[in-house]
Amino acid sequence: MKLYHASGSPNSRRVRILIAEKGLNIELLPVDLGAKEQFSDGYRAINPRAVVPTLVLDDGTAIGEVPAIMRYLDEAYPERPLLGTTPKEKAIISMWERRAELEGFAAAMEGVRNAAAGLKGRAVSGPHAYEQIPALVERSRQRVANFYSDFDTRLEDAAFVAGDSFSAADITTLVTVDFATRAFQAPLPAGCGAFKRWYDAVSARPSASA
Amino acid sequence: MKLYHASGSPNSRRVRILIAEKGLNIELLPVDLGAKEQFSDGYRAINPRAVVPTLVLDDGTAIGEVPAIMRYLDEAYPERPLLGTTPKEKAIISMWERRAELEGFAAAMEGVRNAAAGLKGRAVSGPHAYEQIPALVERSRQRVANFYSDFDTRLEDAAFVAGDSFSAADITTLVTVDFATRAFQAPLPAGCGAFKRWYDAVSARPSASA
Repeated sequence: MKLYHASGSPNSRRVRILIAEKGLNIELLPVDLGAKEQFSDGYRAINPRAVVPTLVLDDGTAIGEVPAIMRYLDEAYPERPLLGTTPKEKAIISMWERRAELEGFAAAMEGVRNAAAGLKGRAVSGPHAYEQIPALVERSRQRVANFYSDFDTRLEDAAFVAGDSFSAADITTLVTVDFATRAFQAPLPAGCGAFKRWYDAVSARPSASA
Repeated sequence: MKLYHASGSPNSRRVRILIAEKGLNIELLPVDLGAKEQFSDGYRAINPRAVVPTLVLDDGTAIGEVPAIMRYLDEAYPERPLLGTTPKEKAIISMWERRAELEGFAAAMEGVRNAAAGLKGRAVSGPHAYEQIPALVERSRQRVANFYSDFDTRLEDAAFVAGDSFSAADITTLVTVDFATRAFQAPLPAGCGAFKRWYDAVSARPSASA
């Protein structure tokens, strides 16, 4: 089993942290995004959307899309579950992981892709070219601010994003904060005390360096 | 168990079709989007994102987000599986269901929300107000066109979106075509023969009227 990834890709980091938390040994194969290697015929044969990461199983099956990769790894290797163990737990964690992605991660990504000079003509990830829309940058900034505020409220009530235990929802939330801070100049605001308490705890886990 | 939904909501229809395919008996409770009932305190207590659908279990647990609801129902009621039975099948179906959503469903929804006069100030679903960005409408139209072309290619190789069998990925693709046709004036183009063959077959299933 091997994971095609890029060290600077936040979507790749979501999977690398999950792998580290589960203690799995998976070969990491770098894809050079700077050299546009994701658009090569070889990589497109593995993932037609031309995005990282992709997990390739020993039988050659290629699994793209982070939630699908996370789901596969958690079900094929059920020790140290990160997506729950009962149908109800799995649904609740999937729901919160997705909220973190839609409200936080995707908003920050949209802001970056519509602003960065190096992404002109590449405003939407995937195989097709789309022009940037500058008005999206400010809207994305508002969305990230609302994400911080909403998740701060959530983390006043819950120790972790999906409840009492660390889960895949925490992974996506952590990667969102670090990505928004580094690439979108949108760090966690000073007033978000519960979110900050959570962030300090989750960042201190050894998996955070993955 | 009950499902809060709206008859005209395409996200609600994704779940209703899944329920019909599985033959489950779940009480449907309408939420009046025209009267903005989704923003009421009562509904927000069930779903803080103020969107439909939401599945409420007999113990009061509220599950939002369509993929999380689909996952719950398929795992709690494993007869007639629509998300696969092995970890590998589950991952492949989740991947294709998500591709249909990100590339097709979300693109059409973005176009509609940024164009419709009745959605001024409501360009992103959820509890927060965002102004429309008219430039997104044309970009969404390009994205839906690429979705049709890419999935036509896929359906030249596969009987159903995720492979040999009908699955949740077909449900999201069907709802996308009908929603894009009705609300975004973006019907399946004449050249997409494989997609049309698939559409005719899937539309003829009794669940399509759900």
